[in-house]
Formats: sequence, C-alpha cells, structure tokens
Amino acid sequence: MTVKTLSGHNCCMNFASDNAAPVAPEILDALARENTGFAIGYGNDGTTSRVERQFSELFERDVAVFLVATGTAANALALAHLSPPWGAVFCHAEAHIATDECGAPEFFGSGLKLVGLPGAGRKIAVSALEEALQRAWGGPHHVTPAVLSLTQATEAGTVYQRDEIARLVAAARARGMLVHMDGARFANALERLGLTPAEATWRVGVDVLSFGATKGGAMAAEAVVFFDPGRAAGMSERRKRGGHLISKHRFLAVQIEAFLSDNLWRNLARRANHMADRLAVRLATVGCPPIWPVEANLIFVVIRREIHKRLQEAGATYYVMDSESLPQTLAVDRDCLLVRLVTSFATTEADIDRFVVIAQG
Amino acid sequence: MTVKTLSGHNCCMNFASDNAAPVAPEILDALARENTGFAIGYGNDGTTSRVERQFSELFERDVAVFLVATGTAANALALAHLSPPWGAVFCHAEAHIATDECGAPEFFGSGLKLVGLPGAGRKIAVSALEEALQRAWGGPHHVTPAVLSLTQATEAGTVYQRDEIARLVAAARARGMLVHMDGARFANALERLGLTPAEATWRVGVDVLSFGATKGGAMAAEAVVFFDPGRAAGMSERRKRGGHLISKHRFLAVQIEAFLSDNLWRNLARRANHMADRLAVRLATVGCPPIWPVEANLIFVVIRREIHKRLQEAGATYYVMDSESLPQTLAVDRDCLLVRLVTSFATTEADIDRFVVIAQG
Amino acid sequence: MTVKTLSGHNCCMNFASDNAAPVAPEILDALARENTGFAIGYGNDGTTSRVERQFSELFERDVAVFLVATGTAANALALAHLSPPWGAVFCHAEAHIATDECGAPEFFGSGLKLVGLPGAGRKIAVSALEEALQRAWGGPHHVTPAVLSLTQATEAGTVYQRDEIARLVAAARARGMLVHMDGARFANALERLGLTPAEATWRVGVDVLSFGATKGGAMAAEAVVFFDPGRAAGMSERRKRGGHLISKHRFLAVQIEAFLSDNLWRNLARRANHMADRLAVRLATVGCPPIWPVEANLIFVVIRREIHKRLQEAGATYYVMDSESLPQTLAVDRDCLLVRLVTSFATTEADIDRFVVIAQG
Amino acid sequence: MTVKTLSGHNCCMNFASDNAAPVAPEILDALARENTGFAIGYGNDGTTSRVERQFSELFERDVAVFLVATGTAANALALAHLSPPWGAVFCHAEAHIATDECGAPEFFGSGLKLVGLPGAGRKIAVSALEEALQRAWGGPHHVTPAVLSLTQATEAGTVYQRDEIARLVAAARARGMLVHMDGARFANALERLGLTPAEATWRVGVDVLSFGATKGGAMAAEAVVFFDPGRAAGMSERRKRGGHLISKHRFLAVQIEAFLSDNLWRNLARRANHMADRLAVRLATVGCPPIWPVEANLIFVVIRREIHKRLQEAGATYYVMDSESLPQTLAVDRDCLLVRLVTSFATTEADIDRFVVIAQG
Repeated sequence: MTVKTLSGHNCCMNFASDNAAPVAPEILDALARENTGFAIGYGNDGTTSRVERQFSELFERDVAVFLVATGTAANALALAHLSPPWGAVFCHAEAHIATDECGAPEFFGSGLKLVGLPGAGRKIAVSALEEALQRAWGGPHHVTPAVLSLTQATEAGTVYQRDEIARLVAAARARGMLVHMDGARFANALERLGLTPAEATWRVGVDVLSFGATKGGAMAAEAVVFFDPGRAAGMSERRKRGGHLISKHRFLAVQIEAFLSDNLWRNLARRANHMADRLAVRLATVGCPPIWPVEANLIFVVIRREIHKRLQEAGATYYVMDSESLPQTLAVDRDCLLVRLVTSFATTEADIDRFVVIAQG
Repeated sequence: MTVKTLSGHNCCMNFASDNAAPVAPEILDALARENTGFAIGYGNDGTTSRVERQFSELFERDVAVFLVATGTAANALALAHLSPPWGAVFCHAEAHIATDECGAPEFFGSGLKLVGLPGAGRKIAVSALEEALQRAWGGPHHVTPAVLSLTQATEAGTVYQRDEIARLVAAARARGMLVHMDGARFANALERLGLTPAEATWRVGVDVLSFGATKGGAMAAEAVVFFDPGRAAGMSERRKRGGHLISKHRFLAVQIEAFLSDNLWRNLARRANHMADRLAVRLATVGCPPIWPVEANLIFVVIRREIHKRLQEAGATYYVMDSESLPQTLAVDRDCLLVRLVTSFATTEADIDRFVVIAQG
Repeated sequence: MTVKTLSGHNCCMNFASDNAAPVAPEILDALARENTGFAIGYGNDGTTSRVERQFSELFERDVAVFLVATGTAANALALAHLSPPWGAVFCHAEAHIATDECGAPEFFGSGLKLVGLPGAGRKIAVSALEEALQRAWGGPHHVTPAVLSLTQATEAGTVYQRDEIARLVAAARARGMLVHMDGARFANALERLGLTPAEATWRVGVDVLSFGATKGGAMAAEAVVFFDPGRAAGMSERRKRGGHLISKHRFLAVQIEAFLSDNLWRNLARRANHMADRLAVRLATVGCPPIWPVEANLIFVVIRREIHKRLQEAGATYYVMDSESLPQTLAVDRDCLLVRLVTSFATTEADIDRFVVIAQG
Repeated sequence: MTVKTLSGHNCCMNFASDNAAPVAPEILDALARENTGFAIGYGNDGTTSRVERQFSELFERDVAVFLVATGTAANALALAHLSPPWGAVFCHAEAHIATDECGAPEFFGSGLKLVGLPGAGRKIAVSALEEALQRAWGGPHHVTPAVLSLTQATEAGTVYQRDEIARLVAAARARGMLVHMDGARFANALERLGLTPAEATWRVGVDVLSFGATKGGAMAAEAVVFFDPGRAAGMSERRKRGGHLISKHRFLAVQIEAFLSDNLWRNLARRANHMADRLAVRLATVGCPPIWPVEANLIFVVIRREIHKRLQEAGATYYVMDSESLPQTLAVDRDCLLVRLVTSFATTEADIDRFVVIAQG
C-alpha cells in the first residue's frame, strides 16, 4: 500500500505526515545554543561524545552510535552492514525499506535482496516468516537469509508486542540471521508498549536499531545504534563513503541531545499518540473506525468520497492511499476511499475536533 | 519453487537437468576444428564476426550480439543494461533470475529491484502484471518500472503463446518499460510455437534476448542479442568489467556457430522436446500426469514416495522439488513428492521407457 | 597531501577548517523563522521552490537543483550521474574527491575510476590533462574518459582562472567528456575572480556544479546544480536511493535561501578571503610566506617546530600537513612543519593578529 | 603503457599475445574424453573434486579453489573478497587490474580503490610501497590499505624474486594488508624462479592466487586459490552472483586437470619462456636488445620504423605500445617504435628465426 495523492492544502488539520510538522521548539533552541564558537568537525566534538554516552545510558549497555540526517540512510547503512551482498533481508512486503526508499537498501547493500512477507497491519506474521524460511535458501544459487527487519511502530500505526518480536527473532536466530529494527517511530511504539528501550530492543534480540528523531520532532537527525559495538567495525567508513558524515556534526548531535534530554522524545511521542487515539475514538463515533488498531500516531480509515470532498474543501491535508493491496476482508467500496491520517507532537485537539466535525457533516 | 534434493546416482535415466548432459558432438567437433593457428583475442576474430552475421540473418535484422559463458551473466548483463539502478524488473515470482541467480541481476544492476508476479505454470498472468502496474511506482520514493522479463520456455516447461506475450508487452510498453526474454531454453520454446525467431521475439516486442546454447547442447555459450543495436552502446564495456569477455573468444564463438549451423540447435531442441512428450504421455498412462502442460523439455509430476524409492534404487536421477509454493489446487499429498524431470538432446527412448517401467512397478 | 595531526586546542585562533566555524547568524535566524506550521516534505514545499528559482536567477538560465546535506554527497551523486560505471573521472591527484571522501565517488558510481593528475597548487596542469588523454583509453579494456572534475577553489587555496578552465574544458570536450566543478568553496573563488556565477561556470563549459554552502556559513546544505536540466533526469531517484533526500526539506532549503539572499554568501566569502589575505601578508612579514598563492581562504605555510610549539601552547588550532608529497622545490626542512590555516567568516582580525604575534615570538 | 595498435596480419610470426595461441592439444583431448554421459552441474562433479585435490597437492596444503573462465573474473572476485568496499588495493600503476580490466575490480569490489605504484619493469618498487603507506590512510575520510596485488610474472615480462616479494609482503603485513598475486602467467614465473608453487606463494606470504591457465594453453580456465580456506567463506556466492559459475562445470575443470597433469603446465611455460629467451638473444645480436630483463614470455624492444614496416609486410603480428609512459631513460626516438612480442607454447623456432632475419634486413 502506497501513498497515491495528497489531498487538500497546507494549513491546519494537516495530517499528511509527521515529517510535515515543524521542529520541536526545544530542539530549535538547542541548535541556537550550540551555535557559539568553533568545534572540530565530523563528530569529534564534545556534543557528539555526550550523545554517544546518552545512548549507552538509555539502552543500559555500551552501544556504538552513528548519526545521520535521514531515516533512509540509517536503514540502508545498517542493512548493508549486517548483510553480505548475497544476503536476503526479510521484511514486511509493505515495509518502508521495501516500498518507499527507491531501492536504497539494495544500493547500499551491493544488490542484497529484500524478501517481502505478508501480515496483518503491516506486521510480519510469525507463520509467514517460518514458512518463508523453509523454502530453499543459501548459496551458491539462492541468496542467504541474513537479516530480519522489523518496523516498530509500523507504517500502519501498529506495534509489535514483545512476545511477537521474540517469536520472530527466534525464527530468525534459528537460521543465523541478525535482527534490525526500523525505529523511525520507535518512541511512539515505546510509549504504547510500556517497555524500557532496552527491553524493546536488544533484550528481545534486536542487533541494530534505526533510531528516529526527525518524525518525532527533530529537524533532520537519526541514529544507527549497534547494541554490539564490535559489529560496527567499518561502519564509520561506510557512512562516510555514503556521503552521510555531516561536517558540522555538532548541529546534528545537538538535535539528538535535546531530543533525549528531559524525556522530551517520550513526551513528544506521547502527545502524538494521544492525538491519534483521540482522533480514532472520535472518528469511530461518526462511523469511521480505523481499519487497524491505532497503536502509534497513524490512523487508516475508510471514508466516503463526499466526506473526503468536504474535508478537502475545509483545508484538511492527508493522503489517500492505494487500497488495492488491502486484504479482501478490508475491500473498499467504490464510494469510499482509504485515507491515512498522521498525527504529531504539533497536532492540536482543535485540529482533531474540527476535522471530525467536518467529517460528520 | 526451488530444487531441494537430488535423488539417485549419476548414471542413465539422468533427468536432473539439461546442463547435466554432455556437449553435442557437432559442437565438440567444431571446437577441435577451430584449434589451429593463431587468432586475435577478445572477439576480434573471424569466427566471432561470422556468428554476429548468423544472428542478424537468423533474426532477419541487424542485431548487436555479445557472447558470454553463462546464462546468469547473459541475464544479469542484459537487465543491468536495460534498467537504471532505480528501476524495477517485473518477472515471475519464481523466475530463474529471481530465485536461482543469487542476486546477480541486483548486483550487476547496482541494486535494481526484481518484482515477482504470480501466474500459473510460472507464466506471468497478464492480469497480475496489469494490477501490479497500477500500484504507486516512480521516483523519487518508489522504484520505476523499467523492464518486463519473460522466461521462454519457463522453468516449469511451459511456453508463452505469441498472443500472451503480445498482451504482456502491451501492458509493459504502456508504462514505458522495455522487454527482456530469458531464452535459456529459447530453442525448445521455438520448436513448440512454430514461429520464426523474429516472430517470437522482436516482432512481438522483445527488446533483448538472452539466447541460450549451453542447455541446448553447447559447452558454455550464451548470447545477449539486442534487436536495436543502438541500445547496446556501452554493453561491451559492461561485459568486460563483469569479467565476461573471454580472451580466446573464437572458442566461445565457434560453439554458437556450430549450434546455429545446419539447424543443429532446432534439431537438438526437437529431440529434447520429443523425449519430454514421450515421457509425459507414458507417465500419464501409469497415473502420473504432469501437473503443467509439457511444452518444452521439463516435466513436473507428483509421484508416490514408494515409486520414488524404486526409481532411486534403479539409479534414476532427478530433483525432488519444494511443493509448498504450489497453488492450493495442486497441493501434494504427504505420501507423494513433486519431482522435476528434464530431458535433453542426450536423453534416449531407452531412458524413458526404463524409467516408466520402474515407476509402474 | 593530507591532514596528519590536529595541533592545539579548540579555542580562539581556530584555523582548523571552515567547517569548524559556527553557522552564520542570518542562516540560524532563517531556520527559526521557517519553523512555523506544517509543510509538505521531501522538497515539495514553497521554500524549496523559491530556492530553485533563486539558482536559476543567479546563474541566468534555467537550472535543475538538488539540495543535499553534505559536500561528499553532492560530489558523489553528481559524478555518478555524469559518468557511466566504466567511466574515468579526471581530477587533481589530491582533489578532495580523490583523497578525502573514502571512495564515495567510486561507490555511487558503481566502480567508476578516478584518474589523478598532477599540477602545482593542486590545480590540474593543462599539459598533464592533455598528456593523460593521449594514453590508451576506451572500451572494452580500458575505462572511458567521461568527466573532468575541477575543484574551485582548490584545497590548496588556489583558484583556477577563467582561461585555465577554458583550456582544460577544451581538452576534455575534445574527448567527449563532461565537466564537473567541486565548488565547496565556490563563493571564495568567485570573490577572487570577479566573475559572475554564470561566467565562472556554464559560460566557460561547466556542466554540473557542486555548490557549497556549509563551509561558507550554512549548517549543512549543499546543492548540485545542473546547467542543462535535461541531464538531470533520474537524479531525483539517485538522490533518494542514496538516502540524501531530506524529509523536512524546508529546513535544508531555507539555509540556502538565506545564504543566497542579500548577497550574504558573497559577503561571508569576502570576509573569509580578506582574513586569509591579512594572515598571509602578516605571516610573510615574519618570514613565513605562503607556499602557494593565497586566493581563497586557505593558507599553507612552513613554520619552524619551535614556532609551532609556541602557537600550540597559546591555543591556536590548525592542521599539520603531510609534506612528503610536496614537489622537490618545496621540500620542507626537518626543523620545520607544513601547516594549513583556514579562515572563515567567523575569523576575526584579533585571531590573526594574536596568531602572528605569537608566531613572531 | 598500453597497447595501441595491432600491426600485421594473423599468420605465422604471431607475437600478439599468448591468448592468440590455440589450445594445447592435451587439453583439447581431455575435453573430448570428458564428453561422455551425464554429470551433475555447477562443480558438484567428480572432475572438479579431483582438480580441487590437485591444487591442494600442488601447493602442499589444503586450499580452497574456485574455477572461472577469465582472468579478469579471477582477479576481480579475489580482490572484492579480500578488500572491504572502502579498502585500497596497492598495485603497480600499470598492472593489468589497473589498466586493462575496464574497472572490474572496482565494480566487483563495490567501489574499492586501486592505488597505482611506480617501479621499473612493472614491478612495484619496495620503496614506493613503503612511501605510499606513510601517507594518511584510514577511515573515515581515507580508504584503508587492504590488499597488495603483485603480478607474477608482470606484463613487462619481468619476475619478482622471492626476496623482493618478501620485502613487499613485509611492508604490507605491517599495515594489516592481505596479499594477492595475479598469476595469469604464474607458470612462466615459476619456471624462471626455480621455486616450488608453495615457495612462490603462501610460503612467502601470498594469501590468494589468481592461477592462470588460459594464457598457458587452456581454452578458458583460471582458478582462484585461497591458501587459507577459511578466508573463502562466501566466495561461492560471490562467484555465482558474478555470473561466473559455469553450469557444465566438468568442462572447465577438465581443462585445469589436464593442464596440471604430467607437468604439462610447466612444460608449456618452459617452451614459451625458452622461445622468448631465444628471441631476446637473437634480437640483441641485431641491435635490438630488450628494454627489460626477459624473464617470462614477453619481450619489449625498440625498433626502427623501417624495420617495423618490413616485419609487417612479411606478416608478423605484434603490438606497438604507447611509449610515452616509459621512464625518461628509456625514451624512444621518433624514428623508432616500442613493440611488444609475446611468445607462447605454440611459438616455433622457425617463427623466431624468420622474424629476426627480416628484422635484420
């Protein structure tokens, strides 16, 4: 399922994406404070060192951290580092890495292969992974299962429960695979799960995390976190030759520092999730219940075309999705559209209430 | 569906693969005749020039030809040349390029993406292609539909009819895609279709053909044929840097020359097809009808485990296939196995008759 | 010649690099002003559109512009777009793309080859290019001359004069090559040359410019400018799959917008150049004349080890360079060191005056 | 120095290249003998197993062997396996891998970088390697010294002595580099050195050898030999996805088997070397001494244009070389040409004697 058309204008009631939101004021303030004097470039500055320590504390173990400016870079660099070129990366058939990164993992991974798996709410079904792994894999003719990549939270706004991850990881580990987590919306998932960062990642078998900050409120800042620093050998070179080593690195680091300080990242995610919950509940009351559980900050609902028209005219912004790849049970009537609504820390209750009122007609 | 285990010993009744067959005597003789005196290397010899002319005559138009030693090289070089790195190559989900080349197309294509499509008998269903093309494609977020790759004959031993190709090509052309044909068993398909080489390729919209000779009787010789020579600019460099420019090139060329001379390639394919037909008919009479139409030189049948045991003990050689990816309607009983039987020019009627007698018990 | 060790501490008298400087206040202010409300991501926002128009006006023709966060990304994406994988990119043997990008051009260019040429002051000597082009090039055995890449200003702080560029371009064009300019310090060069942006680029034969802003005062912003927009087809996909499409793109664009507005970029460069001139003149008076003409914001001088010790103790920061690759005529005495001093818009006269006083002893 | 033009016709007195020679009759016979019955493909046949054992015996240790059809494939696959993408491969500036493989090592190595070093007779000077290694290398900004690649014998027809290799290897090992030997003409070197295969390779520190057979008399057969089989993990997959796994593999293996049997390979090389010696001695007597020591089967001589004209008219075939990259001390007069003469097992004394007579005029 992929974004097809953007309806509406850029104004209030903007549910297009969490990357349409501005930068959290605390992060912008931190950027301004950082802007004094000189600092050696390329990550050898004090702010970057502090951020590295922050991550180790956050995850309760020594980790290796590589900051980059985009989530696509974080994912592609991580996967290329975990898989040989002849490796297979198992992911959901509609994972961001499979459908929305224009082949970045394949490019960085010298032609590694993504194997798309089915599963409701864009969560890989354990049975689907197990079944796929029973096919013929391995060299020299077939690519070798190398990495399981889980998106947490998923692009459907659902969240893998700890035991779901554990079972998927067990199947992967049994085949010698490593585990990557695309955490562009990791904070949103964490808020819902009530787990510590460690419990939600390496304690349940995740080897490398793409830790997202941009969608959560930063300007352009993501981190690749290796829970086993030994596995990160060469990653510094990989990042550089990918063009992803920022020269004035302190301004990248300080975004993450502010994001992780004073629980800002969790507070911002909580706000976004809360707004999604509110929107979901309200939409249900007007006959538009979300088609998947709302567990993060994305909502997928089916609305009638006339409602869509009203919302557009009122200036609401959101994406109409391709509904053809939905399972039969969720088939969308011709008079209806599947739309995606994304909330963020910047979404207000007024946005939601107005949206629902207009939808209600 | 992929090969799982090889049963039996290497002896007569060898149905393992057409690449388990020896070299056609005519081709070996040609190699011996070629082995006199000196000849300039890297394809600048007279034999290579003659082969290039042969292909132009065969296809009734000027073509650009690049000889290589393997089918994987032919396919991967061709696809890399037709698709940008951010392109999508649409193929059957179980096409050789997708499942049995260890990611060669992705490697040569700098991370291009193969999109696997369903279809009975490993032929892409027209509806599946049309549906897939309606999803969101194109830059910058999604890869761009670039190539349709058809396998003719397929690995299931089926053959695309001309009108099937025409419809698939029409759908692809409508999206600006080019068309590649993996013709590892092109001769086998041609024999069945009763078409000229031109009719079976560029006249129905094929842009580039991987023309196979190895499975048909050569030692190690394939050709990439560009029906529009202008499209081949740079292909010579691509082949060289892929390590696929043979230095004593005349010995590669002479295999093809002999293969194409005196209708040898068609005669060898006819023999292989004929043997497959005979085997299919005979097996049907003993209650083991092929699960797909036998249109080339491959037969897929479901046999009882006890029959399999008998055949193995008698020294028959063939592959037991993974039956899990078969459609529900073809589900294989637990007491049974799905086996693949491949005939070649070297298969004898005695091989077949003995095989069927043993199977019959 | 490459950076070997960083001497001194991070304090005033920081001449380590122009990327050790902070962000120009005007650009930080612009970031803050941009941070209101929602804006569609990935470059589809209004600020980005305005920047695209700014570039077309600046260069007096329609151009295609792609913003990225690093200079390495700008260079590598540009070169990969201009050269086939079997192409040769001719550059100075010590150009940034050849020595300081960890192989990024080769990675993005699927293994293209950089051919390093000699020349004083890190400017390619015309004769060196002409001589190199007379060797055997071209397929299938040899890579094909594809791109000439000029660094303007060079990492030695020198500037190609218009006629020098014209002669190099003529030699390249005669072989069908395209011309890339690495303009990480383009503004510094322009200030020195007294040419319009158009005169310094496409009017003298440059096809694609990596336009730098970061070293000039931005936080992390560079632009790849195609003077022939038709040549940019596919570049959007290339950028995305390189992980270089920033999601909250308006914050990348606004840096450039502020940089280009009110002549800020020229003023910042003029300041940096002026500081370099002052430093050069003053150092000459104390017996340390620069070894190359000071035409941008970098100065290379040979100083005695005792002076170096004094400067370090006083807290000056700069790099000691590898002097072994210097030409014989510039051989450095054992008691001396070759040091690189970089000025920026943030350098003050006080920095310089104090530095020279300490050097003088 | 690269080949510029091929003079003469294809007839006797063919000194164009050892790959212009035919196949040794013993090898062609072996191919014919192999052509009986069926054999499982892709290297799982008995002939291949025997060849693997042959190599282990030859080198007096367990080795891992991968057969391919071209020397470019052998080199590129080996280097890609030994170096990370951000690695530097140090080789002679005019090594085959650097100048004649159209970027194959860079392509297979995902953009690794070849660093060309000087040295007389195309042998890397130890001092040149030591000096180069003292420059700034290593991540994240610079590529990391990863592999030293020695060509044995060189394209100049010279041979590294054991102690020369030892000193180069020592310098490389001190930087953690691995050592590759391009042995396209390994047999020729071995004949000259009077060493065992083990002494000439792993005992002196070579990690991986590209073992050539094609130039020595095979049709199309080379072997990548890993002296530490543990280092070969994944190589099978790398070969397959490179399109270099031959399906009817027995016909590749049997060429090597025959080549290594009954000392054929050594005898063929001895013949070629002997012919080169004879040609060198005879040419010296007519005033055309080779410019480099003749230690293998290649001779470089400077001849007057009028002699060249006579030789061409008489039908001699050889390459005129680019003499511009020769060191000053070897500068070629305008009336003269630098030509390369290559002998092979198929060269006859009559060829040589006639050639010299004509040259003498």
